[in-house]
Amino acid sequence: MADAALSSEEILETAEEVLRRFGPGKATVVDVARALGVSHGTVYRHYPSKAALRAAVTRRWLDRAHAALPGVAAGPGSPEERLRGWARALFTAKRAKALDDPELFATYQVLVGENSELIGDHLSELESQLASVIASGQADGSFRGGVEPGVLAHAVFQATAHFHDPGYAGEWSRPTAEADLDALLDLIVQGLARR
Amino acid sequence: MADAALSSEEILETAEEVLRRFGPGKATVVDVARALGVSHGTVYRHYPSKAALRAAVTRRWLDRAHAALPGVAAGPGSPEERLRGWARALFTAKRAKALDDPELFATYQVLVGENSELIGDHLSELESQLASVIASGQADGSFRGGVEPGVLAHAVFQATAHFHDPGYAGEWSRPTAEADLDALLDLIVQGLARR
Repeated sequence: MADAALSSEEILETAEEVLRRFGPGKATVVDVARALGVSHGTVYRHYPSKAALRAAVTRRWLDRAHAALPGVAAGPGSPEERLRGWARALFTAKRAKALDDPELFATYQVLVGENSELIGDHLSELESQLASVIASGQADGSFRGGVEPGVLAHAVFQATAHFHDPGYAGEWSRPTAEADLDALLDLIVQGLARR
Repeated sequence: MADAALSSEEILETAEEVLRRFGPGKATVVDVARALGVSHGTVYRHYPSKAALRAAVTRRWLDRAHAALPGVAAGPGSPEERLRGWARALFTAKRAKALDDPELFATYQVLVGENSELIGDHLSELESQLASVIASGQADGSFRGGVEPGVLAHAVFQATAHFHDPGYAGEWSRPTAEADLDALLDLIVQGLARR
């Protein structure tokens, strides 16, 4: 492949395949360059370090995995329906990734363990989607007011950690997982509702 | 020390010190026997394996750390006050252990990672304390009925995982941790309350 024609997107696509084949511990920039048929210097011109490349691959993978969530948050549906649907869609997406794409999921877990900026941005983005649902419930009077949507969104996001934090991935295929999430969402929705 | 006089309690006390000194990866039954001045066969007569000894030490350590919780759950105070007080006391106890007794906390984390029966029993015991508070709130009419106290207790326990699951220990000394727990408890208590 001619170096001049190589786009960041092509590098990320190949790097994702390399990570999937070798896992986060073993995949190197040289492996990615070899798979592309270019020098590793060419890859470094786009991504200055292995860490930067790994973060960019994970960012793209997360964006794809969660592409449907902003639409669920925006509606249609009542704020309660959107909140429940959003939390269930997040759980379903995370579980599918953990079970169907374990190498990329392991890369994501490594970044979570490192408290990377990428993960911080990802979690902020998810919380702001939740905050938008809560704000619309406060606006239409179905949720109680008096507390900032962002504070409530942070509490709801923490409360549902069992169903999105990769540290709990081992519990996601339990037969009780969906019923547990629904019971938790019942409690949360009652906690948000105007009385 | 004469073998005949050696009680299980003395072994556990010494084993706890040995774990604290060497950490869960390195401490052996031979180290414990040496510290007691007995043969390792003597220790094995009380605890059939290193795993059994480690579990017994952790059980005793957990029981001591959480000795105050049943009293908080039993009252005095309204069900809401007891639920808030119980969750705060659990968080305070876990955080103190993580910060002040890191080697024993690491042993506990190893057992959590292994999904040991001991940890399962410990979590069931905590959830049943929570269930007793919720049942008393349903009985006095301050909490809504219609859902089993055990189901609600499980949801509340999962919802507060950030403040007791050792996987989150790295977040417990953040300056926002207590305010985050209070915001979460506000949400949970509103979710439990009768409307």
